[in-house]
Amino acid sequence: MPKAPTVEDVARVAGVSRQTVSNVLNTPGIVKPATRERVERAIADLGYRPHTAARALRTRRSSTIGIHLDPYAGGISGVVLDRFVHALTDRAGERRMRVLIYAARSADEEIERMRDLLDGGEVDAFVITGTFRGDPRTRWLDDRGVPFVAFGRPWGAEETGTPDHCWVDVDGAAGVEAATRHARAVAGDAVAFLGWPAGSGTGDDRERGWRAVVGASALRLTAPEGVQPARAVVAEALAAGARIDAVVCASDTLAIGARLAVAAAGRDDVLVIGFDNTPAAEALGLSSVEQLPEEVADGVLALLLGPTGNIVVPHEGDAHVLVEPRLILR
Amino acid sequence: MPKAPTVEDVARVAGVSRQTVSNVLNTPGIVKPATRERVERAIADLGYRPHTAARALRTRRSSTIGIHLDPYAGGISGVVLDRFVHALTDRAGERRMRVLIYAARSADEEIERMRDLLDGGEVDAFVITGTFRGDPRTRWLDDRGVPFVAFGRPWGAEETGTPDHCWVDVDGAAGVEAATRHARAVAGDAVAFLGWPAGSGTGDDRERGWRAVVGASALRLTAPEGVQPARAVVAEALAAGARIDAVVCASDTLAIGARLAVAAAGRDDVLVIGFDNTPAAEALGLSSVEQLPEEVADGVLALLLGPTGNIVVPHEGDAHVLVEPRLILR
Repeated sequence: MPKAPTVEDVARVAGVSRQTVSNVLNTPGIVKPATRERVERAIADLGYRPHTAARALRTRRSSTIGIHLDPYAGGISGVVLDRFVHALTDRAGERRMRVLIYAARSADEEIERMRDLLDGGEVDAFVITGTFRGDPRTRWLDDRGVPFVAFGRPWGAEETGTPDHCWVDVDGAAGVEAATRHARAVAGDAVAFLGWPAGSGTGDDRERGWRAVVGASALRLTAPEGVQPARAVVAEALAAGARIDAVVCASDTLAIGARLAVAAAGRDDVLVIGFDNTPAAEALGLSSVEQLPEEVADGVLALLLGPTGNIVVPHEGDAHVLVEPRLILR
Repeated sequence: MPKAPTVEDVARVAGVSRQTVSNVLNTPGIVKPATRERVERAIADLGYRPHTAARALRTRRSSTIGIHLDPYAGGISGVVLDRFVHALTDRAGERRMRVLIYAARSADEEIERMRDLLDGGEVDAFVITGTFRGDPRTRWLDDRGVPFVAFGRPWGAEETGTPDHCWVDVDGAAGVEAATRHARAVAGDAVAFLGWPAGSGTGDDRERGWRAVVGASALRLTAPEGVQPARAVVAEALAAGARIDAVVCASDTLAIGARLAVAAAGRDDVLVIGFDNTPAAEALGLSSVEQLPEEVADGVLALLLGPTGNIVVPHEGDAHVLVEPRLILR
């Protein structure tokens, strides 16, 4: 007995993705008429029949979104991603959608997990987080026509050829710009920036917001993400007699280090502003730029859901939402 | 045509739970012979046939554990539960099991979510967190024979008639006792306790560890969970001239408030020890009792998985694991 044709066979014959075949079967209204005809012809030619038992059971289930959860690595700022997962779960639940979480220690391992979940029919879409230059996940998902939205821009897409995709991100530059303007207004002209070493898309973006406000000669300090390295570099700058009225930081972790250095030097007049508005910054009374992860979650679901409220390959792949963060003053 | 008998019909006729019927069909080895015979007789009498299409598809899927994720409420200590979810996801993934998260704002709403997930066949077991006196979730799950393990003891089970269940918890009393002994050894005899108002199972348990070490006249302070209330109550005690060599606290949030009060009073000689070992405590250099959420996750999976590595109604419902926390000195 010949093997029954599969959705992959239909996709190959019609020259479309598996997702497009699935759309023709489930939500034909969103498929271009010419494409729909081609898929329907392939279905007829091959004698493809959707597995009705599977489909019947499948449609009893709610739509499920897969999202990766990093191994817990400690640190102050990881809480932002957790807040995003909380908000996504909350809002997905209101739409009777499910959120399935999976662990992976690298992008390649994450791709293996995504493959398992798709093969098992366990998820309908993915939300990926922490995009980076040359991210292999976006291409992999794009090639397979799997609906997904990224929390994070396609950093360096022009140079690396990363396919465009739907994303939601926080406008870090705008947040740091607001913090820098505030610092100049209340503390003085000498607003330093404490960031990570150059090359991280997120960090460079935040630095741009500071640079847009201060002059070319303003002091730029860098430290790896950690309270003690941040404290050391700020202490060194203060000891060297650098003029510093305020330090705007790329993260709350760096800001806590800066605050400790400032306090130890008896320079409590130096204003320190963080980024992420974590519980630690709140506890210490540090002002900080708030990422609004709840708005990010809303943006992700808005992109992922078509006009019918069902998951679709959204908006031909290049829609995005840039969330304006908010400066929280303390 | 008469309606085909269901697993519920078999359960009713045999006088057992749905889960026991499921065990007879899938893992008969764990069912007592007398019970197994009764179920098998009911299956034969009713002419029950498992839905083979459903079962075939079902067994292609991995086992899925449902776990509730609280709405994000800010705060310093919420991170412990997030760490537990991270660890559970990680370790479940290693066993090729899935973790599905859902949101709910109350125990009753959580029960509705659990019902939806069970009805849709979307999960095989639950992990519940934050158990409390008279918790309706444990009884609901117990009545239905749904496999579950709680992170949290059946607080007040004797008085409230809460059914016994499988649980993993952290030995808060032992952790605070270690912190109190350390404080007496390095700071002095006058070790105060800063806890929450009486009546929370967790808080009372932690207080017992302190009480076991200090005399009956030792100073006990209380504040609701929050940096500012904690700061105020410690500041007041110091201003009133109370003799305080150290403050052992029921949470890092309380400890940060205590630390701020101590610093503002120029009493940096007072040792402050927190509970939860959060990133905020680490950033501030506070010693703290570490809950080891990764060990809790291991304990939960050990109870949930039978000897075959499959999910079972574990150990006749009353096995438990008490994790000994660790004092982290800074």
